[in-house]
Amino acid sequence: MIIRRKEHWFRMLFIIKGSVLPKVLPRLLLLLTLSVLVVYLRGSFFHMKVQLNPAPFTLFGIALALFLGFRNNASYDRFWEGRKLWGALLNDTRSLARQALTLSSYGREAAEPKQFIQYLIAFTYSLKHQLRRTDAGIDLDRLLPASLAASLKTATYKPVLLMREMGQWLQDAKAAGRIDSIQQASFDNNFNKLSDILGGCERLVSTPIPYTYSVLLHRTVYIYCLLLPFGFVDSLGWMTPVIVTFIAYTFVALEAIADELEEPFGMEPNDLALDAMSRMIENTLLEMTGKPVVTDAPPNNYYIS
Amino acid sequence: MIIRRKEHWFRMLFIIKGSVLPKVLPRLLLLLTLSVLVVYLRGSFFHMKVQLNPAPFTLFGIALALFLGFRNNASYDRFWEGRKLWGALLNDTRSLARQALTLSSYGREAAEPKQFIQYLIAFTYSLKHQLRRTDAGIDLDRLLPASLAASLKTATYKPVLLMREMGQWLQDAKAAGRIDSIQQASFDNNFNKLSDILGGCERLVSTPIPYTYSVLLHRTVYIYCLLLPFGFVDSLGWMTPVIVTFIAYTFVALEAIADELEEPFGMEPNDLALDAMSRMIENTLLEMTGKPVVTDAPPNNYYIS
Amino acid sequence: MIIRRKEHWFRMLFIIKGSVLPKVLPRLLLLLTLSVLVVYLRGSFFHMKVQLNPAPFTLFGIALALFLGFRNNASYDRFWEGRKLWGALLNDTRSLARQALTLSSYGREAAEPKQFIQYLIAFTYSLKHQLRRTDAGIDLDRLLPASLAASLKTATYKPVLLMREMGQWLQDAKAAGRIDSIQQASFDNNFNKLSDILGGCERLVSTPIPYTYSVLLHRTVYIYCLLLPFGFVDSLGWMTPVIVTFIAYTFVALEAIADELEEPFGMEPNDLALDAMSRMIENTLLEMTGKPVVTDAPPNNYYIS
Amino acid sequence: MIIRRKEHWFRMLFIIKGSVLPKVLPRLLLLLTLSVLVVYLRGSFFHMKVQLNPAPFTLFGIALALFLGFRNNASYDRFWEGRKLWGALLNDTRSLARQALTLSSYGREAAEPKQFIQYLIAFTYSLKHQLRRTDAGIDLDRLLPASLAASLKTATYKPVLLMREMGQWLQDAKAAGRIDSIQQASFDNNFNKLSDILGGCERLVSTPIPYTYSVLLHRTVYIYCLLLPFGFVDSLGWMTPVIVTFIAYTFVALEAIADELEEPFGMEPNDLALDAMSRMIENTLLEMTGKPVVTDAPPNNYYIS
Amino acid sequence: MIIRRKEHWFRMLFIIKGSVLPKVLPRLLLLLTLSVLVVYLRGSFFHMKVQLNPAPFTLFGIALALFLGFRNNASYDRFWEGRKLWGALLNDTRSLARQALTLSSYGREAAEPKQFIQYLIAFTYSLKHQLRRTDAGIDLDRLLPASLAASLKTATYKPVLLMREMGQWLQDAKAAGRIDSIQQASFDNNFNKLSDILGGCERLVSTPIPYTYSVLLHRTVYIYCLLLPFGFVDSLGWMTPVIVTFIAYTFVALEAIADELEEPFGMEPNDLALDAMSRMIENTLLEMTGKPVVTDAPPNNYYIS
Repeated sequence: MIIRRKEHWFRMLFIIKGSVLPKVLPRLLLLLTLSVLVVYLRGSFFHMKVQLNPAPFTLFGIALALFLGFRNNASYDRFWEGRKLWGALLNDTRSLARQALTLSSYGREAAEPKQFIQYLIAFTYSLKHQLRRTDAGIDLDRLLPASLAASLKTATYKPVLLMREMGQWLQDAKAAGRIDSIQQASFDNNFNKLSDILGGCERLVSTPIPYTYSVLLHRTVYIYCLLLPFGFVDSLGWMTPVIVTFIAYTFVALEAIADELEEPFGMEPNDLALDAMSRMIENTLLEMTGKPVVTDAPPNNYYIS
Repeated sequence: MIIRRKEHWFRMLFIIKGSVLPKVLPRLLLLLTLSVLVVYLRGSFFHMKVQLNPAPFTLFGIALALFLGFRNNASYDRFWEGRKLWGALLNDTRSLARQALTLSSYGREAAEPKQFIQYLIAFTYSLKHQLRRTDAGIDLDRLLPASLAASLKTATYKPVLLMREMGQWLQDAKAAGRIDSIQQASFDNNFNKLSDILGGCERLVSTPIPYTYSVLLHRTVYIYCLLLPFGFVDSLGWMTPVIVTFIAYTFVALEAIADELEEPFGMEPNDLALDAMSRMIENTLLEMTGKPVVTDAPPNNYYIS
Repeated sequence: MIIRRKEHWFRMLFIIKGSVLPKVLPRLLLLLTLSVLVVYLRGSFFHMKVQLNPAPFTLFGIALALFLGFRNNASYDRFWEGRKLWGALLNDTRSLARQALTLSSYGREAAEPKQFIQYLIAFTYSLKHQLRRTDAGIDLDRLLPASLAASLKTATYKPVLLMREMGQWLQDAKAAGRIDSIQQASFDNNFNKLSDILGGCERLVSTPIPYTYSVLLHRTVYIYCLLLPFGFVDSLGWMTPVIVTFIAYTFVALEAIADELEEPFGMEPNDLALDAMSRMIENTLLEMTGKPVVTDAPPNNYYIS
Repeated sequence: MIIRRKEHWFRMLFIIKGSVLPKVLPRLLLLLTLSVLVVYLRGSFFHMKVQLNPAPFTLFGIALALFLGFRNNASYDRFWEGRKLWGALLNDTRSLARQALTLSSYGREAAEPKQFIQYLIAFTYSLKHQLRRTDAGIDLDRLLPASLAASLKTATYKPVLLMREMGQWLQDAKAAGRIDSIQQASFDNNFNKLSDILGGCERLVSTPIPYTYSVLLHRTVYIYCLLLPFGFVDSLGWMTPVIVTFIAYTFVALEAIADELEEPFGMEPNDLALDAMSRMIENTLLEMTGKPVVTDAPPNNYYIS
Repeated sequence: MIIRRKEHWFRMLFIIKGSVLPKVLPRLLLLLTLSVLVVYLRGSFFHMKVQLNPAPFTLFGIALALFLGFRNNASYDRFWEGRKLWGALLNDTRSLARQALTLSSYGREAAEPKQFIQYLIAFTYSLKHQLRRTDAGIDLDRLLPASLAASLKTATYKPVLLMREMGQWLQDAKAAGRIDSIQQASFDNNFNKLSDILGGCERLVSTPIPYTYSVLLHRTVYIYCLLLPFGFVDSLGWMTPVIVTFIAYTFVALEAIADELEEPFGMEPNDLALDAMSRMIENTLLEMTGKPVVTDAPPNNYYIS
């Protein structure tokens, strides 16, 4: 994720870091070259005039903007839903940690609640690794007892098994007389929410916006931009490349951003900072057990992974 | 559902598999032929000039795009709601499985929780079969005791009866002293959610977008596209077929995609992969009981049923 | 509600049953006549030329489409909310029936749970009658003990009193030692949901989209359509009636559909099939008590009341 | 709120009562006068031609429609949220009344549940008075014991104190052995909802749509309309006043409606009928205690306060 | 937040206080100057005519309006979500205060519930300070016991630790026999909501609208406005500066408002009045313990911090 202070309105016009410009620049240069060529040839290829004018582009440009708006919206909703799910993860792990520390009769300083909180942290990291298809091994070793870590490493749905383990912790606490049925139900209720969060993240990862939409819009945007210079060459002359590149910049860049946001758990510049959020959850849960927080240094290139 | 990696922006312009193009190609060729004919005849039929120009098409094209956007949105919402319901099914069955394994005092290795988890898997498959109007027989036989499977086969609302069966399991567990009233309430709460999921799916299947909308928009799209060549023939000449087919491609394809997504539980290319999701739920629930997961081979044509 | 299979794209252009065309035809014919008259008189009345051109119509047509889109959206949301409420009614009555059969210690075959399920069915029908302002008498007599039916008939808020009766059933069951406080709370929780469903339906019925909106949009659509032929007569000539009628068809039909959907519990062709849904709820609840389901014959004119 | 049956489509064009026309008429007449003047002077003031044409108005008119659409949407959402909150109030007070009558062991005919229901009714009226900043005195005197009414009259947040009183009622019932902890929790849960409803209403009242938005859109609408005649005078001639007034009617009226709906708890014609809803809640709660309902006479001018 | 009564429609055209005009005035003056220069030079620089006309601006202006609409919507949603979260904070703290006063057997006048309510108030202020990155010291000293205040001052996530403290209060109350497990669960349930509110606020603060969007839209708006005079100079002549400034005013102002609303917890004129809301929560909670409310004097410049 890119975290950067808003600049003065004038300086924001020339920002490179954090803009999508570098990514789409090659395509725009290609289009610019085409536009220049079209103007140079006055819209004719092999002495055949390509007979176009602005009218159909007006009609269709607005329709295109509408469809892009729809795609954009759907992508942003996915991004924001992903963020909400990780926000809910923070809330729910905090609630469970509070319950472990103050609902059970273990007392704040006992080892058992701290063990439970380690499970919560391990849940967070194993979810992150599952979503990014990275190896959870190091974090599991770091956070869990060796035997549990070992058995989890070969599992497919690691966070689910961790939840079963937390359920087991709860049953043990009940058997030990540290919680009663009602308090167990309060924990269990938050486990249900944890299950919803987990499944929500899996849903976002496994079900993208229907592929057919992406292809259709991608195609429409690019064909539109390629035809654009022919439509404006007669009326705009040498301003054609400027205008065409400007319009194409917006359309192409919007499509590119939508494409990034669609998969919020990835590692592209605009994706969610799952690494930082995992560390933040670890910090806040540990602070509840009395450990002071070590905050990260701010990134030096505005980018947080 | 079509699962395909995003390609390089240039290659995505020529993708066939996963595009809706093959489906709408015949209609587009028809329109292309009409357009060529219109240009050839210079917009006159039987020496009668069809007097049209781009102005009304601009006006109406944008309105049409708006209405298509509305339809599109409604269809996509249905698709996404269907996906959310199946996601909730995953979450809820996992929660119930966790409760069966760790809330009751049967212990993880006992037969009773495993029996209960079989009910959950059978619920999933029987819901899938109900939604797709396919025969649930084989899956019921595979997953349930013979007598129960037999009695369910003749029932109309199979998942509902399975839920009653799960309620019975719960009452038996309580009678056997394995759970108390409070734990029963925790299960029961998740049964309520299961009931909501079931009813939500039935709602999507039984209530499409009002038929009148579909007819109106369908008609408007096609009449618009048929009139289009007459409006542009005078100003665009031989570019008319290109532009008309391009615009029609986007409008017609969007309407066709919206039509597919409207019924997310069907078996068209962009519908939800209920088969794969059912297997996934079966896998993750069984892993909770200690059975290792066998993952599916990836599909070789990007399509998952 | 109109339930009709999607036809081949070409045949769908000529569907009459299920289209809103018959309803708006008279208005369109009136407009067609006006358009023909305008063309015949070349846009002049009493030798006064009505000086209009397409420009203001483009500007305003798009604004109009936007406003219609807003109205459309609001109406469709009401329709879908109505459907969701009846879906929730199905889910909640099923959950309560499951609780009556498996949470209480009456046992599945006892008379008391069956009595309770009758109350649920009566609740459904009395809600339907309240929403449609029809007489609930016959259904109450059919489903309830005579004395209760008699006392309900004179009541204003019948479903509310039925809920009180269900609460009484619950208290009696508790007094008889068949349920404990915790199970009572589980029932009570679903009663709360039932109360929300009931109130949600009453809200949709008692609060339409602000009347002022309807009047404003209605007026704008019709004045716009009436002025349209004057704007296009000079440039389109004898094509004016075709184009005007086509544009007006879409605008007027959309407004007419939005008008129907706004009151989803009514009895117009696109309203919800409350009759069928009530029977469906009755069927599924009775199947839970062991009674086989008798399904309705499919309607022969695509219309379900 | 205006409650009026939908009329025949033709008669709806001439409705005055329930339309926003009377409110905006003076502004439209002003604009009409300006337009006539502009046409008379052929767009020149002091021999200076105001050089405008339709192009910028097309461009900007559509943008304006979009922004108005946004404002409209936000206002309507507030209106509908207000309605939903009052709907939830109805549902929740009914649920609490049902609980008082059937969860406690007082029995339906006892004085205590009836006392509790009086609190609920007083809550409703005191909320209404708080939202409309009217004097709650008469209703409090009518519904509550004198001492409680007296102490509430000087309080700032009356409904909050009433909820504390209901909590006290609950504690007394528990102390008297009429309810147990679990039933108390069921009541308490609905108290939480009541608290959410109260706070939701306060939120709508205390936080309007950001003032800056209202000012910006208001200005844009009026400046646009004032410039409009200059843009069309050359091409439309004496039709300019007709078209300008028609377009302005829609824009100005939409802005005026949005303005009314933004504050749904006020007393303007399109605001919610809080008086009628309060009486309705009183009626339905009293009917639950056996008192027959006296329905209001329908209003004779379509307006319900 | 700006709180100002709606004025008469005519006077609202000239409001300065509460408008965004002062903020964007410099930019508009710059643009005005450019426009005048362009008209003076008749669109030529160094004898090179910048060949532009309104057509591409129409096409792109509408697309731009759509994209701005999207940004606007997303920003307003964030603003409104922030407001909802603070509304929920009010509701939830009131519910918890009610529980402390009437669920526990301490009685209304005891010191313990009052202590708990102090925690709730301290929670509110420490959340405010965290969101605005201001120093919570003074408020913590004012509201909490000295030792607790001291330990919180060095903590990173102060509200979380306060919630742990409230959980401890609850456990102590249980140990003292003042509440039972079920009442503890009712409190705990509201703690979960408090945790969700806290995390929701943190989410809004830590995750802005993707920076790339802001840059892209900012750029597009300003480049568009800078090119605008060249497009209209030929057809509008000396009216160009008027029209360009008018259009730019709306676009630039909308972008500026969206920018402010995006971070609702800041201290810009349109941000939420967290100070006032914190005081209001303090007032209403204290009134529940019997302390009369001292209301703030209304602000004299329409601005509430």
